[in-house]
Amino acid sequence: MSNKLIGACIFAQSGGPTAVINASAYGVFVAAFDAPEITRVLGAAHGITGVINDVLYDIDKEDRDELRLLLNTPSSELGSCRYKLADPDEDDTDYKKILETFRKYNVRYFFYNGGNDSMDTCSKVSRYLEKVGYECRVIGIPKTIDNDLYGTDHCPGYGSAARYIATSVAEVCKDTYVYDVGTITVIEIMGRHAGWLAGSASLAAISCAPPDLIYLPEVPFDIDRFIDDINRVYAAKKKCLIAVSEGIRYPDGSFVSEAKISTTDGFGHYQLGGLASTLAGLIKMRTGAKVRGIELSLLQRCGAHLASQTDIDEAFQAGQFAVQSAVAGETGKMVAFERLPGPEYKIRMILQPLDIVANVEKKVPREWINAEGNNVTSEFIDYALPLVQGENKRVLEQGLPRFAQLKKIRAVP
Amino acid sequence: MSNKLIGACIFAQSGGPTAVINASAYGVFVAAFDAPEITRVLGAAHGITGVINDVLYDIDKEDRDELRLLLNTPSSELGSCRYKLADPDEDDTDYKKILETFRKYNVRYFFYNGGNDSMDTCSKVSRYLEKVGYECRVIGIPKTIDNDLYGTDHCPGYGSAARYIATSVAEVCKDTYVYDVGTITVIEIMGRHAGWLAGSASLAAISCAPPDLIYLPEVPFDIDRFIDDINRVYAAKKKCLIAVSEGIRYPDGSFVSEAKISTTDGFGHYQLGGLASTLAGLIKMRTGAKVRGIELSLLQRCGAHLASQTDIDEAFQAGQFAVQSAVAGETGKMVAFERLPGPEYKIRMILQPLDIVANVEKKVPREWINAEGNNVTSEFIDYALPLVQGENKRVLEQGLPRFAQLKKIRAVP
Repeated sequence: MSNKLIGACIFAQSGGPTAVINASAYGVFVAAFDAPEITRVLGAAHGITGVINDVLYDIDKEDRDELRLLLNTPSSELGSCRYKLADPDEDDTDYKKILETFRKYNVRYFFYNGGNDSMDTCSKVSRYLEKVGYECRVIGIPKTIDNDLYGTDHCPGYGSAARYIATSVAEVCKDTYVYDVGTITVIEIMGRHAGWLAGSASLAAISCAPPDLIYLPEVPFDIDRFIDDINRVYAAKKKCLIAVSEGIRYPDGSFVSEAKISTTDGFGHYQLGGLASTLAGLIKMRTGAKVRGIELSLLQRCGAHLASQTDIDEAFQAGQFAVQSAVAGETGKMVAFERLPGPEYKIRMILQPLDIVANVEKKVPREWINAEGNNVTSEFIDYALPLVQGENKRVLEQGLPRFAQLKKIRAVP
Repeated sequence: MSNKLIGACIFAQSGGPTAVINASAYGVFVAAFDAPEITRVLGAAHGITGVINDVLYDIDKEDRDELRLLLNTPSSELGSCRYKLADPDEDDTDYKKILETFRKYNVRYFFYNGGNDSMDTCSKVSRYLEKVGYECRVIGIPKTIDNDLYGTDHCPGYGSAARYIATSVAEVCKDTYVYDVGTITVIEIMGRHAGWLAGSASLAAISCAPPDLIYLPEVPFDIDRFIDDINRVYAAKKKCLIAVSEGIRYPDGSFVSEAKISTTDGFGHYQLGGLASTLAGLIKMRTGAKVRGIELSLLQRCGAHLASQTDIDEAFQAGQFAVQSAVAGETGKMVAFERLPGPEYKIRMILQPLDIVANVEKKVPREWINAEGNNVTSEFIDYALPLVQGENKRVLEQGLPRFAQLKKIRAVP
């Protein structure tokens, strides 16, 4: 474990961007610059495809002050990909190219920052390199706004998206009380397979009020029960604020967002907009009330201006810890967070074997959702609230965000 | 002009909410508390309807620290209305009730905070009171994210909405470059009659890049030219970021958002979502590219977390100036901003006659839009950029916004 391994490192970003994935990049860069074992710091363009195609950037040649701005720059600065590597036993073409790149630059450290699929990539690369006897330490760094990665208390990216959602829902909540007329508002929130993001809408209670109803993918969706729930709330207060996860499904497993719900608009047309507008049309038809559908869309994953400082710090530390662990001899692992017991929120960094993390989705526990399946419990709030803490220290230029502007100089071996 | 008028004041909010309309409320309250002539400070619930129905709150009984939080509380805290007063010569029912309320509480000052329609209300009330010989000073305070009020350089509310839009478009801009695949993104921005808000998307240039194309209601919309524009940009860079105003219209004056555009999805269905999803469907059909539609929706008018401090300060000062002007003897006027010449941004408060302001819409000058009608010029940016300056000093509680929580104690005469 303690043998010194000298060589270059490659860092790459994969999967959907977040508000803080670049903070992990900065953590990796800072720690790699500091490690005497790491001779060169490279960044791959567009995830593993940049490694396969030898499109690498010389991070050493970037201005350090500019790199620091990565802490508050949303999106994946090096570019990302959604590329699934084949099983190396069936087709090793990509792996040979990866190995070629690694040899060309004497890469001995590989850091891959992503979600479930990316940990699968990471795991496959790690096993392949081991099999062919090429010494290289591979560490995964978690990232996903969806928070559905197994083996970690939570994921970098989630806290900031949750803060964006809670703040936006609180502001919309204020807005819905402006007019003295009945209104129903449906807010569509990301999260294809788990309800962590939709559940975070409940944090709007701190500022205004929680949504009256929250629907997560963990509970099978029933349209009639949904309308009954709304009618009950609306009858009592002439307002109804609803958060729905984009991932809600019917009992047969099909996504509500993909179903064609007839809104019988007189022409027998179907709603072709997003889930929020589909449901808004349906509610309007079934209740006759004034309904507005709002889709938080991309904004919730790129809203760096609302990133929680806790999330930024943890994302940064996860990057640092990945490098420090690899230098210390670790490989084939993913950085994970363990929440420590006690009244105050505290985590420590641990490592989890890549193969137990890859391709498993962590759901919201059923007991954190109320019995009716239309809201979350206080356990959920206790879990999520510490993650949205801390105003970030973003840099402004003329009143608007100053993002990192990297030179992205192509590396030559 | 300098006769002392002693009595109560009523402040009311009308029309769509903004991120800073409550800052104007706070300006009115602070100045009214300070004015010896004003014996009592009342707030009407839901605009003029609260005056008509005698639903008033005793602002004097509110906690001062809580009132101060109005500076960063979005939405209309007293409630708003969209209520059009009849012509008093045809039907004076409402006016009689207003007069009754005014007499009951000895109201001698009336401050009405709103947009075009609200200035019409304000103007009618002012003329009626004059006609019946009830001495009361009436001052309008401008407010509208749409920025389409005549007689003022700009409106409180616009700068903050513009800052929300520019920041969000900049973050989406970063996000669109993540994957190495072609994408077209259409962002729908509010502004039914004028393109001030859609134009503010151009400020994203400070952080990332301006939208490739911006369409305002001031230029008649041509679908074929729109598709040609997109094809040209997309062919050159495999990306295209488009901002459209919800108010774009065909040459015959009909709103594009209301037209049914066949997307021939195989079933002959029409898009029933918002404009963004309608246009996204159309672009997809005509270009074959991957397209995403994003509607900024309510978030742009209630996004207090991104309010510009310049806007908050000006909204507050507009409220103060309204009270000070009324106490000094002015009536039948609206507070307006005059931008002073010189290299540095500076405004001064002036008063405009209500009747020249009411019901007129201020458009973006044609010469601030490029010849092709698909973007704004540098004159637009020079105009809008000073208005988005200054990070606001919002108060947080557990990482989330701490909004004002008023007691709203019903007033008795």
